[in-house]
Amino acid sequence: MTAVQALAATPALIGLDWGTTAMRAYLFDAQGNVIATRASGEGIMRLPQPGAFDAAFDAACGDWLALSPNLPVIAAGMIGSAQGWREAPYIETPADAAALVAGIVRVTAACGACVHIVPGVIEHGELPNVMRGEETQIVGALASAAIDGDTRALVGLPGTHAKWAVVSGERIESFHTFMTGELYGALREHTILGRTMIQPSQFDTEAFLRGVTVARHAHQAGLLATIFSTRTLGLTGVLQPEQQPDYLSGLLIGHELCGLAGLLESRGAALAGESPRLIGSAALCERYRLALTQFGCLRASVVEAAAESGLWRIATQAGLVARHAFEPAG
Amino acid sequence: MTAVQALAATPALIGLDWGTTAMRAYLFDAQGNVIATRASGEGIMRLPQPGAFDAAFDAACGDWLALSPNLPVIAAGMIGSAQGWREAPYIETPADAAALVAGIVRVTAACGACVHIVPGVIEHGELPNVMRGEETQIVGALASAAIDGDTRALVGLPGTHAKWAVVSGERIESFHTFMTGELYGALREHTILGRTMIQPSQFDTEAFLRGVTVARHAHQAGLLATIFSTRTLGLTGVLQPEQQPDYLSGLLIGHELCGLAGLLESRGAALAGESPRLIGSAALCERYRLALTQFGCLRASVVEAAAESGLWRIATQAGLVARHAFEPAG
Repeated sequence: MTAVQALAATPALIGLDWGTTAMRAYLFDAQGNVIATRASGEGIMRLPQPGAFDAAFDAACGDWLALSPNLPVIAAGMIGSAQGWREAPYIETPADAAALVAGIVRVTAACGACVHIVPGVIEHGELPNVMRGEETQIVGALASAAIDGDTRALVGLPGTHAKWAVVSGERIESFHTFMTGELYGALREHTILGRTMIQPSQFDTEAFLRGVTVARHAHQAGLLATIFSTRTLGLTGVLQPEQQPDYLSGLLIGHELCGLAGLLESRGAALAGESPRLIGSAALCERYRLALTQFGCLRASVVEAAAESGLWRIATQAGLVARHAFEPAG
Repeated sequence: MTAVQALAATPALIGLDWGTTAMRAYLFDAQGNVIATRASGEGIMRLPQPGAFDAAFDAACGDWLALSPNLPVIAAGMIGSAQGWREAPYIETPADAAALVAGIVRVTAACGACVHIVPGVIEHGELPNVMRGEETQIVGALASAAIDGDTRALVGLPGTHAKWAVVSGERIESFHTFMTGELYGALREHTILGRTMIQPSQFDTEAFLRGVTVARHAHQAGLLATIFSTRTLGLTGVLQPEQQPDYLSGLLIGHELCGLAGLLESRGAALAGESPRLIGSAALCERYRLALTQFGCLRASVVEAAAESGLWRIATQAGLVARHAFEPAG
């Protein structure tokens, strides 16, 4: 959409994807098209002081609200955590869009706008799992993937705390968290493994796939036993310093997918038979797509614009847009 | 031994356990008793500049050598690495004390002393493994454990880069490295898991064993999938901040031992049937002993003074002590 088109469209909703380290704001028209986007580094952990939410909100959307004072606002992510603007208690799995709508918590901004905060999701058990923000992306992915009501689907959200969710129809049935991204950063920046690494100028597919293969062969021995090979394969001249970052990345993603395959097996499913929907940065999703092929899983696809689709879908299901577009705000 | 006895004994050997972050120096009499010990923080990575080995050596042992100028000197550990005083190339598994003796490399200190550096050990393969210093501790453990020539033994060296070695008779047949200690530090200091932790005033056995149990139940899912539970069990009120450090410790050690059990199984051995010899700090060995009981492995024992025993044994086998004690130095 061009700037002229954007100006011509009538705003109908503000959506905020407000996480720990960043915030993205979307302005939607009444058909759900994104007509403007703002990106801000003011994630909830980066605000200058607790309670700086109003200022960050004004900076991101103040002008949009000045032009359309009654615009509804929906927000998802860590903004609803105990450290956020207002806590939106987790809802339990199985969780669908209706349950998310029922769990919405409202906070009134200093400017008078009512911000509707989407709750996160929790799965209890020996290993409890929580998500905030990903539930909205999953709802968005399901909307855009046109999954049938009864179809089981696997949704992967690689990143700092990678999530893998099993979705049945439109319900999040179960999910797991793999600390792959954060562990990779900690290993590179704060252990001996990083000392012999040099950042390559481009992705080293061969080194990455070597790591995936080693993880597949040695998953039972475990990650603690395999990661030191990043160093010893360097010592023995097999891996150059420029190959070690992608080798380690392949090792970790390989272990993650081995673990995922085991978890699916315990539910009677096989990773090779899945068609995972991936949500995340293009480069990271490509790594996962490549690694998944090593597990015989050849039908992974990348979902674009999942956060904005999910915000829109939850807002419409909550009646925020309908009320605004067709009825006087009440 | 009292100070008076120490003064009365005739020095026969200086042994150095010289690693990355610390150095320990031992003065032995002709019967292999340690008559004096020095501890220094001048590990090879903490020296003020490359080539500061002579100054650190003088500071640790200069007065001993001034009194007994012809004392033989033996050193083990990272001092023999490419970043050390002189590189002592790795010898390959299977490796016994005779092979270590044959691989000794000599460097002449500025004061004229000849320092004999024990080589490390390498095991080639898809996951190459290396050790420097641990080979000497293992030789020491075998000496003090009075293991028969043909007996298989399992030696564990918990720590930053934990080693588990399978020893047959007096040969190191095979070994594995688990980055457990360094990963624990990186997770605590540099990831979200540390943010909700408070250091307990004493070891929390229950939290530790909970971590071991979770690792045993979920080893197939893998460490990437289990460690986030340190946070979520806190969020759900199951783990208090003071319990989270020992829970995470139990998780990691549990995964390490699950991995070890699998590696032993692939050789036809069972962890439960082993009598592991543990070498390391008393508190850490106690954690491992406790965790091992959860695997049915009830006969772990702790080996004391393994480094000094190994230095003495390798030096005598190399003829360093005999030459000095019974023949004129050549």
